Amino acid sequence: MLSGRDFWSTHEGDGIRSLVLVDGPHGVRRQGGEADNLGFNESLPATCFPPGVALGSTWNPDLIREVGEALGREARALDVDVLLGPAINIKRSPLGGRTFEYFSEDPLLTGVLATEYVHGVQSTGVGASLKHFAVNSQETERMRVSAEVDDRALREIYLPAFERVVTEAQPVTVMSSYNAINGVFSSENEWLLTELLRGEWGFDGLVVSDWGAIKDRVDALRAGLDLEMPGTGDEGRNAIVAAVRDGRVDRAVVDRAIDRLRRLAERTAVVAPADLTDMDAHHALARRAAGEAVVLLRNERDTLPLRRGQRIAVLGELAVKPQYQGGGSSHVNVTRLDIPLDELRAALGDLVYAPGYATDPAADAAMLLEHARAAAEAADVAVVFVGLQEKDQSEGFDRTHLDLPAEHVALIQAVAAVAERTVVVLSNGGVVSLEPWHDSVDAIVEGWVLGQAAGGALADVLTGVVNPSGRLAESIPFRLQDTPTYLNFPGENEIVRHGEGVFVGYRWYTTAEQPVRYSFGHGLSYTTFAYEGLEVSASGTDTAAARVTVRNEGAVAGAEVVQLYVAPAASSVRRPVRELAAFTKVRLEPGESAVVEFALDRRAFAYWDIVKERWFVEPGTHRVELGRSSADIVASAGVPLEGDIDKPAPLTLESTVGDWFGHPVVGPALMQEMTAGASAEQLAAASENENMLKMVESMPMGQFARFPGVEIPDAALEQLMALSG
Amino acid sequence: MLSGRDFWSTHEGDGIRSLVLVDGPHGVRRQGGEADNLGFNESLPATCFPPGVALGSTWNPDLIREVGEALGREARALDVDVLLGPAINIKRSPLGGRTFEYFSEDPLLTGVLATEYVHGVQSTGVGASLKHFAVNSQETERMRVSAEVDDRALREIYLPAFERVVTEAQPVTVMSSYNAINGVFSSENEWLLTELLRGEWGFDGLVVSDWGAIKDRVDALRAGLDLEMPGTGDEGRNAIVAAVRDGRVDRAVVDRAIDRLRRLAERTAVVAPADLTDMDAHHALARRAAGEAVVLLRNERDTLPLRRGQRIAVLGELAVKPQYQGGGSSHVNVTRLDIPLDELRAALGDLVYAPGYATDPAADAAMLLEHARAAAEAADVAVVFVGLQEKDQSEGFDRTHLDLPAEHVALIQAVAAVAERTVVVLSNGGVVSLEPWHDSVDAIVEGWVLGQAAGGALADVLTGVVNPSGRLAESIPFRLQDTPTYLNFPGENEIVRHGEGVFVGYRWYTTAEQPVRYSFGHGLSYTTFAYEGLEVSASGTDTAAARVTVRNEGAVAGAEVVQLYVAPAASSVRRPVRELAAFTKVRLEPGESAVVEFALDRRAFAYWDIVKERWFVEPGTHRVELGRSSADIVASAGVPLEGDIDKPAPLTLESTVGDWFGHPVVGPALMQEMTAGASAEQLAAASENENMLKMVESMPMGQFARFPGVEIPDAALEQLMALSG
Repeated sequence: MLSGRDFWSTHEGDGIRSLVLVDGPHGVRRQGGEADNLGFNESLPATCFPPGVALGSTWNPDLIREVGEALGREARALDVDVLLGPAINIKRSPLGGRTFEYFSEDPLLTGVLATEYVHGVQSTGVGASLKHFAVNSQETERMRVSAEVDDRALREIYLPAFERVVTEAQPVTVMSSYNAINGVFSSENEWLLTELLRGEWGFDGLVVSDWGAIKDRVDALRAGLDLEMPGTGDEGRNAIVAAVRDGRVDRAVVDRAIDRLRRLAERTAVVAPADLTDMDAHHALARRAAGEAVVLLRNERDTLPLRRGQRIAVLGELAVKPQYQGGGSSHVNVTRLDIPLDELRAALGDLVYAPGYATDPAADAAMLLEHARAAAEAADVAVVFVGLQEKDQSEGFDRTHLDLPAEHVALIQAVAAVAERTVVVLSNGGVVSLEPWHDSVDAIVEGWVLGQAAGGALADVLTGVVNPSGRLAESIPFRLQDTPTYLNFPGENEIVRHGEGVFVGYRWYTTAEQPVRYSFGHGLSYTTFAYEGLEVSASGTDTAAARVTVRNEGAVAGAEVVQLYVAPAASSVRRPVRELAAFTKVRLEPGESAVVEFALDRRAFAYWDIVKERWFVEPGTHRVELGRSSADIVASAGVPLEGDIDKPAPLTLESTVGDWFGHPVVGPALMQEMTAGASAEQLAAASENENMLKMVESMPMGQFARFPGVEIPDAALEQLMALSG
Repeated sequence: MLSGRDFWSTHEGDGIRSLVLVDGPHGVRRQGGEADNLGFNESLPATCFPPGVALGSTWNPDLIREVGEALGREARALDVDVLLGPAINIKRSPLGGRTFEYFSEDPLLTGVLATEYVHGVQSTGVGASLKHFAVNSQETERMRVSAEVDDRALREIYLPAFERVVTEAQPVTVMSSYNAINGVFSSENEWLLTELLRGEWGFDGLVVSDWGAIKDRVDALRAGLDLEMPGTGDEGRNAIVAAVRDGRVDRAVVDRAIDRLRRLAERTAVVAPADLTDMDAHHALARRAAGEAVVLLRNERDTLPLRRGQRIAVLGELAVKPQYQGGGSSHVNVTRLDIPLDELRAALGDLVYAPGYATDPAADAAMLLEHARAAAEAADVAVVFVGLQEKDQSEGFDRTHLDLPAEHVALIQAVAAVAERTVVVLSNGGVVSLEPWHDSVDAIVEGWVLGQAAGGALADVLTGVVNPSGRLAESIPFRLQDTPTYLNFPGENEIVRHGEGVFVGYRWYTTAEQPVRYSFGHGLSYTTFAYEGLEVSASGTDTAAARVTVRNEGAVAGAEVVQLYVAPAASSVRRPVRELAAFTKVRLEPGESAVVEFALDRRAFAYWDIVKERWFVEPGTHRVELGRSSADIVASAGVPLEGDIDKPAPLTLESTVGDWFGHPVVGPALMQEMTAGASAEQLAAASENENMLKMVESMPMGQFARFPGVEIPDAALEQLMALSG
């Protein structure tokens, strides 16, 4: 019962039906016929919704919920009990092979969106599986690598999205990741799967292994891993049976896992017959979601939107062979596929098209480029489709660079040199470099991978049918060398040191003041939004309320993502200069304004105290910042918070000389004790010699007190310590 | 016997005389009269030679040996048995409070120079004390902090200088550092003090604690720490006696430490009466050494050297109150002090002087600045003395920024705005920012802290009596934010994560391609040197020989530092793009040339393999690069090395699918095994689906083999593993 029957289903027995768990996260990958497991056979058709990278860029929780509902309906219709998603790992490096499946480099944005995904899927009765728990930030050596990461980074960066989804949306399953964390594999990590997940967060569902993640079935079971997938013949069962007989595992542990499986079956039981899913409606939803995901990075001279009547050249083979998903287990066999060129023709009428480059290696590259150049020269606007192929961005391996294919860059450069105006449309699951051509083009549309409606969605944005409202959920650096993990990714010798600690993504760039091409949170619109009257006030000792008015000052309707960051008060630990604390997406007609209100909870201000193992809000003035991106703060207000005030710890012999002298009661008493035997000359010299005092300030009193000439008696120290308590 | 008698001496007894150990490293700090330990009283006069930062910049081992000999003679004359130096910690961050005592950010340069220092000191019969062992890279929390650092960084960066000095110069003592390494205090670190130091490196001297570093005398003794300093009354003795009685420490361990103390006494015994030291000669040596330490960073329009007959304005109070050493235990009470202004007047005749700023807070800053500006305006050349005070750079605390005092920057800017030509002379123990004024001045002389002859040495360089030949032993970044340790220094919660690993100093800047203001190795001369005919050839499987001709093409004699770097062959671990492998300083008359030859040993090419715990030379083509600095490579040559070739490890179930399929024997056999049962359709699909194969490539075979549809029997796997052995 506790190991799969085959690749996608569980055993039935003990009154529990067989359950079907299949890949997501952005479409249902249900294999028909004889499942061949690794995907050699195509799966049944399903809607390919925008992958995580695109959903993350929408910054729209309500929309994600709709997508989740649709995914649930399709899963239900295909007799699926659990859909393996959402995938919510933090994008530690843009090179990560599965970043296209993940939402963001920020845990708050990830957590808020993923919560709605789970709400959506589970509203249909289908279970979600929150994955990959945890710190699964890379593909290289993913099954052997240990993520060496400190507790602050775990608590502040890698775990909060999981915590939020578990506590707010109660996913019925959580999937353990392949990798180890600080030397312990996630599947065998009792702290992770039991103490933290169930103990601290109150998870009451089932923990399933990532496919093939288990090394020792018994260790995994004891750590809190209930269900092994896929099946391993009799091996898993035999191991557990033997362990129970040996007394290595308590029978109750086995029963508990079976009970969780039973509960999973109950929670995912079909209460009503599956709807006949309206696949056209789902395609329309996929298109709408994709349209909201597009990020308009640059739009000089109002080059976009394109207008009917312009002479438009569409260039680049990706306009007819769109890239809309990444490779690996999330690959969906689509129900339909929108072709960008067709959609643009439908919207704008006659267009010139030239491929510019070709995936076919036999093609004449020079001729293709020359044709495209000529077409660009004759046009008012050249729209260049470039990007990565599915084979460049896949589960199973990480990228090694951020470059677009050389022939794509060559096409951009050739076009930009001759075209009246150049628009670049990017299709890429992971961040790509916009250098060296960035400044030579007029507009850049970041289209990520947008799912099966990519073509329609891109046409919608390019033509202004949709006013772009996507915002970057990850930073676009100038160079790979600028990324905080450049020399620590993907690690070596099966170890990946998280040397950057909590300074992941924009937390690094803003704190180390390293410029990027486009910052987290950036995204343009065809209209403009103005802010007025940011007000922030404490709503408790460690919480605050904020409000601001946002107004659409342009001529078209549009949506603004209002982003609030917190710049924390001075702290005894090194903190990012700002962190995303809240956001909301507001849709406004021309001239319309809205008041947006935020409640900032304790966690918006807190850091993880590794010594006392708790969240801590520093007393002092925190700043609440309103940003158009993480680098573009347009207003801010200080909010003094009482915070957490600890009674000072009693002095010990390990406390420093500085701690002792700084103590309000003990300091003066100690000074008296020490100066009792000194000559006037020594006292005068001492008072002049600040540096010498600074030298011993960090010395533990226990060591200092024994110094020749210092020699504070033990009894005196003990008396003084008693005073400090 | 195993704890000091007082602050500076040991107990006599057991036939062993009392030994005197006093602070160095760049001068003898022997306290007269009643020692008051922490330096409240002045010490006896001694020559203040250039501190480590300056000695490091000379890149001249022979000169360092001369300084060592002079230090030894002065120590001998003051009845000192052990001089506490050299200090050879690696400059991990320019903020480190004691970087002025250390040589470099590079372990090779540090180790080569420190070896000669020890040779020099010990040639006089005085013992040296190699400190602070190890990873004592900061002052903040130095007595409690744990340096969290991986084995590669330890072996490649933090330990090699210690290793070289121990193995090549046999210092009679090594001093354990205050800090912990990966959680274990150095003074109680058996791996460090015994396994590595004595076992691997063959150290046969005595290990002494840094003053007050011991927390538990018994643990320290067992770890291999012989002598506790300073004395702790009866405490240390009592603890050891009790531990021997309890059986916690073997009596032999105590005897061994006593024997080491006896041997130290024998090795430092006075064999001849101390010379009457010629203090004038030592001052002259201090001046010569300081002159070689000055680094000419910039010299536009041949502004330097200054010439008699020019109208020269000397500005800045540091010209009359020179800063020549840092604060803390290394502070020397000088025998003489050269005043820069006096020395310049002696060399150049009449000069205008204005203080420009004043240490006296009561001074009228605006008036001082205005007078200096006026003087600059009337001069042909304005020479501005700026820098840090002793209170800014001291043992006991780290700096928090790289800025010069604001009034110094203001002076530079005021002067540069009006002067015909501006020369900036820097006096600073640690690196300072040269922004934002760098581009506005004509010449920059980096004078570090140069010891008591600083004034004379600076005049020598400024007037051309000495042709500058110093080279940067550490990088000068544009901004603190650019340093690799920016967010990981000095750590928090008593932990300092070495997130940058081996990428310290120029290894970071060159590998991450981050620009700096001046690179490690940079330094100008009043003449120019040309290189011809770099030749490199393998001299064994893992060693190489290099030769190059260097020619003085200018009109004056000068010295060039020939720097060879190695850019390693492609590697399975992330390596710096280049590392200093050898260097030599060559003195050449105008027109003269010399052939310089280098033997590059195994270590020049090796990295530390953390898995097999050994040095490893990658087979392949390494490049030997000749650089004017770490960033300015003027010639290079590839050298193919056979390197270390391991027999491939036998396959195990933990080996990846990729390892198995890639094995020359096992791969084909496995393919046959797996395809035996597959349909032709599946095979065709599989061969088209490269990404799917890539997905499982990193999976351990033990897990993959159990997958449904894969199911390779255990017996088959065992047969295949047998084939691989």
